[in-house]
Amino acid sequence: MAKRTSLKDIAQLVGVSTALVSYVLNNKRENRISKAVAQKIRKAAQELNYQPNQIAKSLKTNKTRTLGLLVADIANPFFSSLARYIEDEADRQGYTLIFASSDENPQKFRKLINTLLSRNVDGLLIAPPEGTQDQIIQLQQQATPFVLIDRYFPDLRTSYVALDNHQAIYLATEHLIRSGFRRIGMLTFQTELTHINERTRGYRSALNDHQIPFKKRWLREISRSNLIPEVAKAIHELTAGHNPVEAIVFASNTLALCGLRQLKSQSIRIPDNVAVVSFDETDINDLFHSPLTYVRQPLQEMGQLATRILLETMSANNRITQANLPATLVVQASTQPLAVSLLD
Amino acid sequence: MAKRTSLKDIAQLVGVSTALVSYVLNNKRENRISKAVAQKIRKAAQELNYQPNQIAKSLKTNKTRTLGLLVADIANPFFSSLARYIEDEADRQGYTLIFASSDENPQKFRKLINTLLSRNVDGLLIAPPEGTQDQIIQLQQQATPFVLIDRYFPDLRTSYVALDNHQAIYLATEHLIRSGFRRIGMLTFQTELTHINERTRGYRSALNDHQIPFKKRWLREISRSNLIPEVAKAIHELTAGHNPVEAIVFASNTLALCGLRQLKSQSIRIPDNVAVVSFDETDINDLFHSPLTYVRQPLQEMGQLATRILLETMSANNRITQANLPATLVVQASTQPLAVSLLD
Repeated sequence: MAKRTSLKDIAQLVGVSTALVSYVLNNKRENRISKAVAQKIRKAAQELNYQPNQIAKSLKTNKTRTLGLLVADIANPFFSSLARYIEDEADRQGYTLIFASSDENPQKFRKLINTLLSRNVDGLLIAPPEGTQDQIIQLQQQATPFVLIDRYFPDLRTSYVALDNHQAIYLATEHLIRSGFRRIGMLTFQTELTHINERTRGYRSALNDHQIPFKKRWLREISRSNLIPEVAKAIHELTAGHNPVEAIVFASNTLALCGLRQLKSQSIRIPDNVAVVSFDETDINDLFHSPLTYVRQPLQEMGQLATRILLETMSANNRITQANLPATLVVQASTQPLAVSLLD
Repeated sequence: MAKRTSLKDIAQLVGVSTALVSYVLNNKRENRISKAVAQKIRKAAQELNYQPNQIAKSLKTNKTRTLGLLVADIANPFFSSLARYIEDEADRQGYTLIFASSDENPQKFRKLINTLLSRNVDGLLIAPPEGTQDQIIQLQQQATPFVLIDRYFPDLRTSYVALDNHQAIYLATEHLIRSGFRRIGMLTFQTELTHINERTRGYRSALNDHQIPFKKRWLREISRSNLIPEVAKAIHELTAGHNPVEAIVFASNTLALCGLRQLKSQSIRIPDNVAVVSFDETDINDLFHSPLTYVRQPLQEMGQLATRILLETMSANNRITQANLPATLVVQASTQPLAVSLLD
């Protein structure tokens, strides 16, 4: 990179001392300097395209006006949309974002946290993978400002912004029940992550509240590391045999995407053969042959709220804020009620 | 944030001078220090969770090991997937990424460039909006290392990594012609951006090479600021009347998404009523009622190559590299040939 303009360059051009240039460019008031000189200095700074050295400033203030954003995968539309809302809110407050993807891998997560901290980010927005509770505790002990997003650890007193996951899937399951479906399957992840297990709990609560016995074989827990074959097997088993399910709830956008591919490959018609509730706002929902009913997360509110809480935390406010925002259910054709005659 | 561990803290714990701690932690070789002392210092640094101050280091080296990534919109799956590949390559080389979305707005773009430079990024990966040629020239004059991605300005000698846009749409159009379609419409953007206009040129070249007269009313140039109504109007006019088109090529994923919604709302069947070539790898392609033929960009190669060229440029290599990578066409049901009888 070419040598950047220094205060000295400006001083030489104007014919004043470097100290005077520094004083003028770093202070809003300059009562003690003649206005003409101050103007000359500002003009020279502009002509020479002087950029204040943010690094030098950062060393002094110990602030970089940069936030770290640690997601599972920036290419997942849930995270890229959330990132966009966080970016907009951070920008409004004068912050930029460094992002990184952990791939749900605790080792990679640990490495990325250290990298972000070594870049002296002022705070972190984190979607922690399974098995990273210790890392989060360490951040607390170091008093690093952070807010968890999407996921959280119920045993830890940390700030977080997440979905009301129980309510979200309760809503989806109850909608299916009220539409006349009784044999309702669910695809979820096999995980210790609370946000996913809350979704499963929502499914079971809704069944229970409507006196539908829970059947273990209708709840399929998929391993992330073996996604495609396990989803294929689950869909196959849920839809085959004497007692196929009438409806399927997907606990995440990844599971929905994968499950819909499998349903399509089996030529299973939606909702004729099986009703479907998808998860998250995706381009598929409206363009699918039978537009999909889906659980909508309030991404904009989540992104804005998480960013605002983080900025508050950074300004030495130690209050813990925990938010589980409600989901809405967008009802479309994929959960159209069974023919009225069947319900009579 | 709690006080971070300083060299002094380590020095006090071990009972040596701060200078000695600094010497041990900053040097790989420590011939002149007893191994036992050096080990004690390293152990203390670990126990106190000492993090070297990257800002102080940055001030010395004038390097932050951070790259700026300026896209149109990180929530667009093209950019979030590309960002992911860039992230992976940057990470392999020890760099993190600050990202920002310009929304195709030259004023916002200018502001974001300045913000990223004020964060002292070591280099920039930029998808420039229309009307930002002057900004790019200014970066050149400042000798800021950068590589353009996705878009470029043919009049400027800058490094860039983009698609071979002419070849991409030529391929799509020729495929339609060879499948028996003659009345082929195209939806593109009204823009001065070269990468889009090259796509239009590819469409016209393919028609020309196959002796199909170009019809102005079949090429619809959509304004980004009025996307939905203009796409609706274009699709309506292309598919209505006595002389509807038999096939439509979309010049971008945004146009395809919007166009497919319109086709769906008009209950136009694909490929029975009209064949369609979509753009970019999206979740819709395979899940659409009739799986979509689409232009596939080599995102991984693009991301890797752009990052590598940028890192070379940063290491004082002034060579300009311009790459237009070839697209592939993924052929699926949406461009299934017309019934053989019609071709006879």
